[in-house]
Amino acid sequence: MSNLVERALNGEVIAAARLMRLSDDRREGYQVFMKEIWKKTGHAHIIGITGAPGSGKSTLTDQLITKFRAAGKTVGVVAIDPTSPFTGGAILGDRIRMATHSLDEGVFIRSVGTRGNLGGLSVSTMDIVAIMDAMGKDIVIIETVGVGQDEVEIAMVADTCIVVTVPGLGDDIQAIKAGIFEIADIFVVNKSDRDGAERTSNDLKMMLEITPKRDEWTVEVLKTMAEKGEGVDELIERISIHEDFFKENKLKRRKLNERLVHVAYGAVKEKLVNDIFPPDKIKALIEDGNDPYTTVEILWNNIK
Amino acid sequence: MSNLVERALNGEVIAAARLMRLSDDRREGYQVFMKEIWKKTGHAHIIGITGAPGSGKSTLTDQLITKFRAAGKTVGVVAIDPTSPFTGGAILGDRIRMATHSLDEGVFIRSVGTRGNLGGLSVSTMDIVAIMDAMGKDIVIIETVGVGQDEVEIAMVADTCIVVTVPGLGDDIQAIKAGIFEIADIFVVNKSDRDGAERTSNDLKMMLEITPKRDEWTVEVLKTMAEKGEGVDELIERISIHEDFFKENKLKRRKLNERLVHVAYGAVKEKLVNDIFPPDKIKALIEDGNDPYTTVEILWNNIK
Repeated sequence: MSNLVERALNGEVIAAARLMRLSDDRREGYQVFMKEIWKKTGHAHIIGITGAPGSGKSTLTDQLITKFRAAGKTVGVVAIDPTSPFTGGAILGDRIRMATHSLDEGVFIRSVGTRGNLGGLSVSTMDIVAIMDAMGKDIVIIETVGVGQDEVEIAMVADTCIVVTVPGLGDDIQAIKAGIFEIADIFVVNKSDRDGAERTSNDLKMMLEITPKRDEWTVEVLKTMAEKGEGVDELIERISIHEDFFKENKLKRRKLNERLVHVAYGAVKEKLVNDIFPPDKIKALIEDGNDPYTTVEILWNNIK
Repeated sequence: MSNLVERALNGEVIAAARLMRLSDDRREGYQVFMKEIWKKTGHAHIIGITGAPGSGKSTLTDQLITKFRAAGKTVGVVAIDPTSPFTGGAILGDRIRMATHSLDEGVFIRSVGTRGNLGGLSVSTMDIVAIMDAMGKDIVIIETVGVGQDEVEIAMVADTCIVVTVPGLGDDIQAIKAGIFEIADIFVVNKSDRDGAERTSNDLKMMLEITPKRDEWTVEVLKTMAEKGEGVDELIERISIHEDFFKENKLKRRKLNERLVHVAYGAVKEKLVNDIFPPDKIKALIEDGNDPYTTVEILWNNIK
C-alpha cells in the first residue's frame, strides 16, 4: 500500500487511480494511505465550477483544461454526477467532449457519484481531489451538476468558486441566486449570445453590490460563449488574479484547513453511520413500531 | 407542552406553529412532543413537487392549493429554500402568490431553510410535515427549490412525487433526468406554450419506456401552463388516481415506514454531530495539524 502511495506521489496515474478506487470503495485500511495523502496536499489550486443544469459547465471545463494545458499546467478534473437512489449507480453525463483530453497525460479526469445519505460532495470525492493534489496536479477542477447544497459545499472546499449561469432563467432563480452571491468568487454568464444576457449580467452586478463582501476580493461578472471559446481567456486571467490574491492574503492555509475540517466532519459521520448505527438496525426498530425519536433514544442507550 | 400537542392535534394553528418553532430550534425536550406527534401521523397524503429552478413550481403549487380547497380538502405546504452558508438565514423566494391563501384557515404554509451540514431535507423539515399531518391536514405539499439530492430525498418521503420540467433546458438535463426517472410518479411539462414542449414531452416518454418500473404504476407526462391554470385539473385527477393506487396496494404503510426511517436516520446523525462530536472539537484538532483521518481516530478513541 505504501508503495502505491509513493508511486502516486510521484505522479503515476495507475497508482493514483488505484488509490482512488480503494478510497471510493472504502476498503479496509484506506484511512492509512489517505493520512499520507492528505499530508502532501496544498500544492494544487482548486477550482469549483457550479451552476444550474444546462448552463454549459462541461463545455466551459473543457475549454479551461485546454487553456491550462497550453500554459503548461497539469490538470485534474473531478466531475460529480447525481446518483440514482434506486440503482445506487453513478450516472455519467455528457463527458464526450472531455474525451479529447484522454490521450493527454497531463490531464486526469474522474467522474464520481454523489453518495445518497451523506449528501452533496461526499468525503470520498474530497479524497479524490486530495489524491490529485498530492500527485502534483497544478489545477484541480471540481465540476458539479446541480444547484443548492452542492454549491455551498463547493464554496467550502474550492479555492476559487466559479458560478455559471445563463440568460433567461425564471423567477425561482432569484431565490437561488441570493444564496450563491456569498460563495462565488467569479460569476460567468455563459451562452451570452442569448436574449437577455445583458440583463442577467446587470442583475447579477446589482445583487453583488448589496452583498456583504468577504475579504477584499471583487466578484466580477464575465460573459462567455463556451461553445465558441469566447471569453475563456478573460476567465482564465481572472482565475489567475484570484489565485494570486489568494496567496498574497494567506487565505490558502485557511481554505485548506476548511477543507480538512469538512472532510473530517464527513468522515466522522460516515464512521458513525456505517459502523455504529447501521441503517438496518434503524429500520428494524421502526418496523417494530417505534417512532424516530424513540429509535434514536434506544440506539443512544445502547452505545452508552 | 402536552397541552400544546393536544391543541395542535385538534387542528389549532397557533399551537402547531409553536411546536414547529420549538422543533426547528431544537429546543430542549422537542423529542418528547415529537414522539407524540409522529405517533399520530399517517392521515395526510404527502405530495412532493420538485424540478429545476424557474420551472414554475410555486405557481403550480398555488394552483393545486386552490383546487384542493375547492374540493373541501385542507392543505399544508412546506416550501424549502436554500440557506445561505454564511448568514445562516433562510432566503424567502417568491411566495407572494401564495399570500392569496393567507386568510384561508384551511391552508397552512411554512417556508423553511435547508440545514447546511445535514444536507437536503432536514429532519426538522420532516417534523414540520409530521405536525401538519398530525393536526389533520388532508394534503401536505412539499415544494423544493433545486435539483439533485433534494429530489432523491423528496421521493423517499413523499407519497406522490411530481417532477416539474420546462421545454428547452440544455444538455446537462440529460444527466439529471436519468436519476429522476426512477423517483417520479407524475411528470409535468410546465410552460408548455414554449417552443419544444412536444419534444420535451416525447423525450420524457421515451426515457420512461426504458426505465425499470417500481410497482405497477404508470408514470404519465402531463402538460400544464400553470400561470393560466391550464392542465391543472388533469394533474389533480392524476394525483387522486395515484393516491387511490397507493392505498389499494398498501404502499402507504411502506412509505410511512420509509419516512420514519429517514427521520430516525437523520436524527441519529444530528445527535451524534451536535452532542458528541461538535464541529469546534474537529476544528481544533485540524488546527493542531492533524489530517482528517487522524482526527476521526482521536475522536473515536475518546468515545471509547
